[in-house]
Amino acid sequence: MSAPKTAITPTRADDFPEWYQQVIKAADMAENSETRGCMVIKPWGYGIWELIQQGLDRRFKETGHQNAYFPLLIPLSYLEKEAEHAEGFATECAVVTHHRLEAVKDEETGKTKMIPTGELAEPYVIRPTSETIIGAAFSRWVQSYRDLPLLINQWANVMRWEMRPRMFLRTAEFLWQEGHTAHETAEEAIEETRKMHKVYADFLRDHLAIPVIPGEKTENERFPGADMTLTVEAMVQDKKAIQAGTSHYLGTNFSKAQDISFTGREGSVEHAHTTSWGVSTRLIGTLIMAHSDDDGLVLPPRVATQQIVIIPITPKEDTRDAVLASCHALATTLRKDCKFHGEPLRVLVDERDVKGKKWEWVKKGAPLRIEIGPRDVESRKLCLQRRDKPSNDKEFVDKEDFLRNVTDILQEIHDNLLNAATAFRDENIVECSDLESFHKHWKQDNPGWLLTPWCGSSAEEDALSKEHKITVRCLPLDKQDEPEQACLVTGKPTKLRALWGRSY
Amino acid sequence: MSAPKTAITPTRADDFPEWYQQVIKAADMAENSETRGCMVIKPWGYGIWELIQQGLDRRFKETGHQNAYFPLLIPLSYLEKEAEHAEGFATECAVVTHHRLEAVKDEETGKTKMIPTGELAEPYVIRPTSETIIGAAFSRWVQSYRDLPLLINQWANVMRWEMRPRMFLRTAEFLWQEGHTAHETAEEAIEETRKMHKVYADFLRDHLAIPVIPGEKTENERFPGADMTLTVEAMVQDKKAIQAGTSHYLGTNFSKAQDISFTGREGSVEHAHTTSWGVSTRLIGTLIMAHSDDDGLVLPPRVATQQIVIIPITPKEDTRDAVLASCHALATTLRKDCKFHGEPLRVLVDERDVKGKKWEWVKKGAPLRIEIGPRDVESRKLCLQRRDKPSNDKEFVDKEDFLRNVTDILQEIHDNLLNAATAFRDENIVECSDLESFHKHWKQDNPGWLLTPWCGSSAEEDALSKEHKITVRCLPLDKQDEPEQACLVTGKPTKLRALWGRSY
Ligand SMILES: [Zn+2]
Ligand SMILES: [Zn+2]
Repeated sequence: MSAPKTAITPTRADDFPEWYQQVIKAADMAENSETRGCMVIKPWGYGIWELIQQGLDRRFKETGHQNAYFPLLIPLSYLEKEAEHAEGFATECAVVTHHRLEAVKDEETGKTKMIPTGELAEPYVIRPTSETIIGAAFSRWVQSYRDLPLLINQWANVMRWEMRPRMFLRTAEFLWQEGHTAHETAEEAIEETRKMHKVYADFLRDHLAIPVIPGEKTENERFPGADMTLTVEAMVQDKKAIQAGTSHYLGTNFSKAQDISFTGREGSVEHAHTTSWGVSTRLIGTLIMAHSDDDGLVLPPRVATQQIVIIPITPKEDTRDAVLASCHALATTLRKDCKFHGEPLRVLVDERDVKGKKWEWVKKGAPLRIEIGPRDVESRKLCLQRRDKPSNDKEFVDKEDFLRNVTDILQEIHDNLLNAATAFRDENIVECSDLESFHKHWKQDNPGWLLTPWCGSSAEEDALSKEHKITVRCLPLDKQDEPEQACLVTGKPTKLRALWGRSY
Repeated sequence: MSAPKTAITPTRADDFPEWYQQVIKAADMAENSETRGCMVIKPWGYGIWELIQQGLDRRFKETGHQNAYFPLLIPLSYLEKEAEHAEGFATECAVVTHHRLEAVKDEETGKTKMIPTGELAEPYVIRPTSETIIGAAFSRWVQSYRDLPLLINQWANVMRWEMRPRMFLRTAEFLWQEGHTAHETAEEAIEETRKMHKVYADFLRDHLAIPVIPGEKTENERFPGADMTLTVEAMVQDKKAIQAGTSHYLGTNFSKAQDISFTGREGSVEHAHTTSWGVSTRLIGTLIMAHSDDDGLVLPPRVATQQIVIIPITPKEDTRDAVLASCHALATTLRKDCKFHGEPLRVLVDERDVKGKKWEWVKKGAPLRIEIGPRDVESRKLCLQRRDKPSNDKEFVDKEDFLRNVTDILQEIHDNLLNAATAFRDENIVECSDLESFHKHWKQDNPGWLLTPWCGSSAEEDALSKEHKITVRCLPLDKQDEPEQACLVTGKPTKLRALWGRSY
């Protein structure tokens, strides 16, 4: 059997969706479970989520938010109230109808069967989002303008019965955070919506090395019931778009439905202006598709469970102890003396007595691999391998130099990933101002995105979207006051630009 | 209306269970929800859980464990397999039987009803514990002795249909961590069981200021299917016991049921030795009952969301800015220059323009309150109030002295809480070696615990337990090799001591 040229089969070019599944498998990040549409997130994948949580949670707290926890199960009556206000309400939910199991022994087979009993008078659904149950709490908590702003976030699992699950990108159960806030005025709520939108854009750039296009959704693409939906849109390597996070200004639409009202400064009763905003484990899918290559996962250092993996090379028994000692001494120094963005370095010494360790860590996307062998111990050198370089590249460096430069190297890896993703994205966004080239564009394989002058109506947007299986990803924030151009469909002069693409 | 003598009504002496509810309410920690038996954990309560998580998670990682995440929903078939092996299997579970809701409009009332549709061929239960689903994963992951030890932890929500819920202590949904590990040998698994037991005991002492009695459960009280159950038992202020955490050695009982087998060093197929261990939001209930007083919650500094609350005293408008500036300057210095157990101090300046702020923070249990008024700004003094002292005690201290001593003061508060709880516990554990005094003891109101010589059988233990509504809380680890005494029931000489008490 001849070795394949790449560690992952198929390659991105051969079959992108299958490549994605194989990267997850080779990196040991997650696997399917026997619970329909649900995955087991394995330690290497969950570690990324923990680092995403830490990074975001710090930013949420710095902007004045507090975490709380609300019940998993939502009374049907809450959803009934909601359904009267919101069209397109999510109905693919897991429904709890019983609260007991009875073990019954089958006389013939001798097997035990579990039978649901204890039927509930009112069923519950497992939260597809906590909008309604948090709204009910806000209604109790907000009485006076003095109780505002109310700035709450929840980290939780949620569930939607997905028909076509795909690991991390779309699973029946997923992990997320949902921010919910209530404010005295529209201005304050809109400022909050924009602030959290910026938190997401900054976080994706600075932690995940993903350059996003921040923008506003059109009315067609808005969250049901929102007055304004802001989104951060990421382009991944098959040129599709992923909506990586959203921030909604809900006006008083939800506060009226949920009776979140307060006595204002002048004594009159007013409805609060609310927002909500969230990101999920979908970020991990976005991360994989944005940076990984045909040798497997590529992790930006700030979300790598282990940033540096030290592999002892121990060909002979008599030098083994010295090599191991040298590896551990280096790991200890790195952990103790170096910080990256204020955090101690995460360093692993992989002492396992197995073959193929180097390729294992390539496939897991560890940013830096270090090999130390018997000769390196004496010369105080080490063999440095970077995940942002070709997998067989290596460099022999002086240990002291490495210790001086290690955080710069990690930052360089981050910057290289960000720059590569930015260049790829920019190459694949084309300006387009006539309808003929627009139609032609989408007939290509893996088309990139188009930026067009736009003042069309929802109906016109809908028609184009259906015809080409595309959507307006957003009206980019920095393209809302451009030189006037003729709108793609109406021909009327417009200063607005719309960004179109295919998406996950 | 005359002011009550205590901030909480009723007092502990008057009505302990009601006092407990009122402390939670006054501290704004949690409230009941419309989901049966489930609570909303509000920011001040959830902040405590976040600090518990951080403290424990660091200890889990330092002992080599990794976090992962498993599905919320468990196929009934997993429980059926389990029920054949474990007696007394938990059956009060939330059962998911449908995966869709249909909105139906009632013609007469105009109201929308939600009807469950999409019946599942195989129902699921919401995890009451993840034992079975993690076992199924371990069965896939463990093939060779090289895959061992497998050291996994999960932070998750779980659900048990509780008939008599009590906030934090017993709720239908609760938050917990569950460690699950698999090992090559019994010795290693037992060592793991003991190690995590010690982690719990250390954590409760060092973070929650709760002195526990670490010990082993009798066969009667063991986790079903366990070969050994270790527990940490806390005494709270009504002298009842709370089982604050458990660590189980499961032998090969679960690995046989779940087929967690591996090829051993000699090539034969063996079953792994497994453990599990967990603590939950019940720790918060324990914490409240252990330390709080008739003025409300008392928080040990390491789990206080805010360790220091600074209250500006601004009687006149013209000195207001100077006072606020002084408060913020102090907060910044405290956050920047002082560390408590390696963490920056958590300091809040409470600028709100409301009355009764001092008592609010007393009731919320903030360890240190600081008041700064116009005169203090000039004299560089501050008014210091400690939650471990009577609520009206205050001390005027020099600001520089305070900054020098603040971490010592916080540690002193922790130590005072721990010492008081230890003294209370020790006063309320009595040695007892004859059956007559034993019977008499339990007829008192709020009886403390009894330590007795014991070599009785399960049947004898059962009879005594039922008669007095007590249990053997544990066989304390440090009382298993005592001078020989006659057993309470059999009269046979024994070196073992049993600790009896009433419990939550
Ligand atoms: Zn137009
Ligand atoms: Zn005996």
